[in-house]
Amino acid sequence: MKLTVVGLGLIGGSMAIDLRKSRFAKEIIGVDNRPEHADEAVRLGIVDRVTDFEQGIKEADLILLALPVDQIIALLPKVLDLISPSSTVADVGSTKRQIVASIADHPLRGNFVATHPMAGTENSGPGAAISGLFSGKLTIVCDHEQSRPQHLALVEKMYQSLGMSTAYMSSDEQDHTTAFVSHLPHAAAFALANAVLAKEDGSIIFDLASGGFQSTVRLAKSSPEMWAPIFRQNRDYVIEAVNAYIHHLKDFREALKDDEQDHLIKLILEANKIRTVLSGESTSMTKNEATIVKLYTKK
Amino acid sequence: MKLTVVGLGLIGGSMAIDLRKSRFAKEIIGVDNRPEHADEAVRLGIVDRVTDFEQGIKEADLILLALPVDQIIALLPKVLDLISPSSTVADVGSTKRQIVASIADHPLRGNFVATHPMAGTENSGPGAAISGLFSGKLTIVCDHEQSRPQHLALVEKMYQSLGMSTAYMSSDEQDHTTAFVSHLPHAAAFALANAVLAKEDGSIIFDLASGGFQSTVRLAKSSPEMWAPIFRQNRDYVIEAVNAYIHHLKDFREALKDDEQDHLIKLILEANKIRTVLSGESTSMTKNEATIVKLYTKK
Repeated sequence: MKLTVVGLGLIGGSMAIDLRKSRFAKEIIGVDNRPEHADEAVRLGIVDRVTDFEQGIKEADLILLALPVDQIIALLPKVLDLISPSSTVADVGSTKRQIVASIADHPLRGNFVATHPMAGTENSGPGAAISGLFSGKLTIVCDHEQSRPQHLALVEKMYQSLGMSTAYMSSDEQDHTTAFVSHLPHAAAFALANAVLAKEDGSIIFDLASGGFQSTVRLAKSSPEMWAPIFRQNRDYVIEAVNAYIHHLKDFREALKDDEQDHLIKLILEANKIRTVLSGESTSMTKNEATIVKLYTKK
Repeated sequence: MKLTVVGLGLIGGSMAIDLRKSRFAKEIIGVDNRPEHADEAVRLGIVDRVTDFEQGIKEADLILLALPVDQIIALLPKVLDLISPSSTVADVGSTKRQIVASIADHPLRGNFVATHPMAGTENSGPGAAISGLFSGKLTIVCDHEQSRPQHLALVEKMYQSLGMSTAYMSSDEQDHTTAFVSHLPHAAAFALANAVLAKEDGSIIFDLASGGFQSTVRLAKSSPEMWAPIFRQNRDYVIEAVNAYIHHLKDFREALKDDEQDHLIKLILEANKIRTVLSGESTSMTKNEATIVKLYTKK
């Protein structure tokens, strides 16, 4: 199978590395409009060769768009114009509603599979690509009933070969949930970094930042090229999430202001539940299980 | 040297482990009002033996108070009442103004050294104690001119034997800086956990939480026994820090609402500076170096 990866950054590069390892792809072609990224990807052995956009699209069985979400929207219709009618296209963007809307009426809409593999680091570029980034993680497949079964099956097989499981949601559900679980934590980290940087001297931050602060602001190192378009495309839900967050911060602040110790302890105990949830041991979910099955197993 | 550790949790336990390893302490006595913690600390070999509070204080050369900050305030005056005039007492609490105020007029004030070793994890209890927790980290020593030189020297030597460096600040400076660099990140994580838990189903959070969300909310697992008293004792500065944080979140939200892409990108680029600051490569600090030296090297 001939795979073309458009965008040789952290995500595209890491996928290429492991899709070669798993023998899912026999030949991997790279496309990147930044010559230095293209050169680096070849030098690091991430792709077999690089070519121009049109050539890369035309000759592949599967085209993977691993670009910032604004560039996905700009390129996706062109990609569907260029492919042979039997080729498959998938994107890996963090937002989905605007991306699927951009090709809703395209005659080859069924060749496209909208996906969001939930993995990443705060680093970018082909040099940041690593093996194992996706293993054990989850990919959200959106509006899968809009994709023809063969194309869906090939993309599912690809994620399976990366060691990932797949969940099925509408684009709207994915954008809403991702606003809370991924976009909000990034917004929170950016604002936390800015609040601390505005107040404290850099040397003091460096000296006093124990592991706690470092892990909380880690996402604040993420690039604006990737994140500004995500926030923009998911604006309504991100604003909803930030508002909910500000509401909880104010609740905390008021409990502190009014010295309501019981309420403060209650807020901390509530937050502590995230330990159980993240360990996957939570049992409080059982009553909602039916909904989740519906959400996740439309397949 | 005979060391008594009052409070055999994560911090007290981890210090005991490495103070034995470094041969700083020959004998380590444990005091904990929770019998199960006391038993566990003996079973794990963290302390040589446990004894009651009064006995533990009376027979030690150095007493380390590793307790939640409300308990430090409750016990510190009693500890100074009990010690022999040549013994040294240090606390490891995250707040300092109220703690030093509680014994400001005690005849043995000079035997006490107020410190804050900047290290920890989100776990608690003697079972969470680990070797190496403090190595390479920094301890803030507060109002050191109030401690007699011998007692200061012994406590500095103890932190040195843990592989830590020491910085010198007033209690007020430490409480203000710590509000931003440590207490705010905890408040931010508690509120983030609550915002996401209130909106999303636990199973979805578990499935979709990639590394990014997990690291951002990690501190939300921290215990209310430790954190409610910290927030309470540092209330004014924590409220200042939370207000600054809400201000930056609102700034982000407005940029998004008004679709001001340039401003949004500027906010992200500003936040990205945390990468340089945390790597210690920041050069923008040079102009402030004089201030920092003053802050840090009063010793």
